Amino acid sequence: MTITLYELSGADRSLRFAPHCWKSKLALVHKKLSYKTEPVWFTEKEKFAVSEQPLLPVITDGDKVVSDSWAIAEYLEAKYPDAPSLFANDEAKAKAESFHQWVSTALSKHIPGILILDLYNVIADQDKEYFRSSREERIGTTLEEFAATPEKHIKGLQTELAYVRELLATQNYLGGDKPDYSDICLLGTFLWIATSGTKEFLEKDDVVYAWYQRVLGDYSEVIPKSVAA
Amino acid sequence: MTITLYELSGADRSLRFAPHCWKSKLALVHKKLSYKTEPVWFTEKEKFAVSEQPLLPVITDGDKVVSDSWAIAEYLEAKYPDAPSLFANDEAKAKAESFHQWVSTALSKHIPGILILDLYNVIADQDKEYFRSSREERIGTTLEEFAATPEKHIKGLQTELAYVRELLATQNYLGGDKPDYSDICLLGTFLWIATSGTKEFLEKDDVVYAWYQRVLGDYSEVIPKSVAA
Repeated sequence: MTITLYELSGADRSLRFAPHCWKSKLALVHKKLSYKTEPVWFTEKEKFAVSEQPLLPVITDGDKVVSDSWAIAEYLEAKYPDAPSLFANDEAKAKAESFHQWVSTALSKHIPGILILDLYNVIADQDKEYFRSSREERIGTTLEEFAATPEKHIKGLQTELAYVRELLATQNYLGGDKPDYSDICLLGTFLWIATSGTKEFLEKDDVVYAWYQRVLGDYSEVIPKSVAA
Repeated sequence: MTITLYELSGADRSLRFAPHCWKSKLALVHKKLSYKTEPVWFTEKEKFAVSEQPLLPVITDGDKVVSDSWAIAEYLEAKYPDAPSLFANDEAKAKAESFHQWVSTALSKHIPGILILDLYNVIADQDKEYFRSSREERIGTTLEEFAATPEKHIKGLQTELAYVRELLATQNYLGGDKPDYSDICLLGTFLWIATSGTKEFLEKDDVVYAWYQRVLGDYSEVIPKSVAA
């Protein structure tokens, strides 16, 4: 029985950019589970109607359907306890949950301004009107206006990463001496930037850059060539 | 020279529901300015391309184009100082700006759960796919699921209104002895609920209900029959 992961894709079906989908894919790789992926455009929600809710990622595992990247991580951990663990223990899980929240809000708020126009350019033609309208309604201005000063948003991201720098001051991974789901959350978010366009959003002398190169290596089997360390 | 107000409308072009558009229309009525309105569906942004940004309300006044309900209020006040005032003085303006913020965030977060499915039913057919997809992406579930417990959201709204009850304990209007732009912000938001479907979202013994009936009378010339006091 193979797990299927439904993920957002660009016009080029092999381009996967969505951070929450990356988290689920990296979790599958981390746990060494076999899976296949099904690329979905923004306007192809009927492809995962079985989920009865509108957001990706979704996985199906036999009869089981799970949505939401955090719920997927919990599901995989509970269902496949003998596979490599995403959380070493309850404390690591609580830390990862809080870190996941922080990455999705405080850190991620800097990211649309870095990549939104690049992303617009690589999504499917049939997605463009939807993407432009929904994002412009959310950001309150045109994509072009919002994306006019990417360096400002990159600077904001770099400043926000002070918290991660502290965590990495004394250990190689957020999970300690090996990567866990906290590392996966941050890597998934960096891959959102890296796959959408901008490759250079970290200074090379930043401890976060060293971590990023390390995890790109650890999960190299799913890292696109254009991004690889 | 007549002012034109571009506002969102339902499939029935005479149905206007958008709270920020209501604020600008009420401001025009308050200042006794002559204006005409141009109804716009969600998927007709080309109608106000002159604004070079994607959100309504927009007004044009001769060559001048202004977007954003707060900016429109400021513009009208500065441009037509002899017309009835939206802000009695600088202090009233600062209060209104802070109140406007509160209404748009803390208070309004309770509202989509009250009306989102009613609204879906009255918008233009060509808007429905866009509306469903963008709102479901925002709320993280289906419209049907989100709208399944309106009474919960109405209760949340009623609780949040404690702040308004306090303000109205000693005066008839948020503006004091007559309505000002603070009253307009709250009325515009209530009209969002009232025009989309649900009419009963306040208890009749609530001081806020008494205020609501009062302002419906004050701005009766633009209040739809289905809502009128």
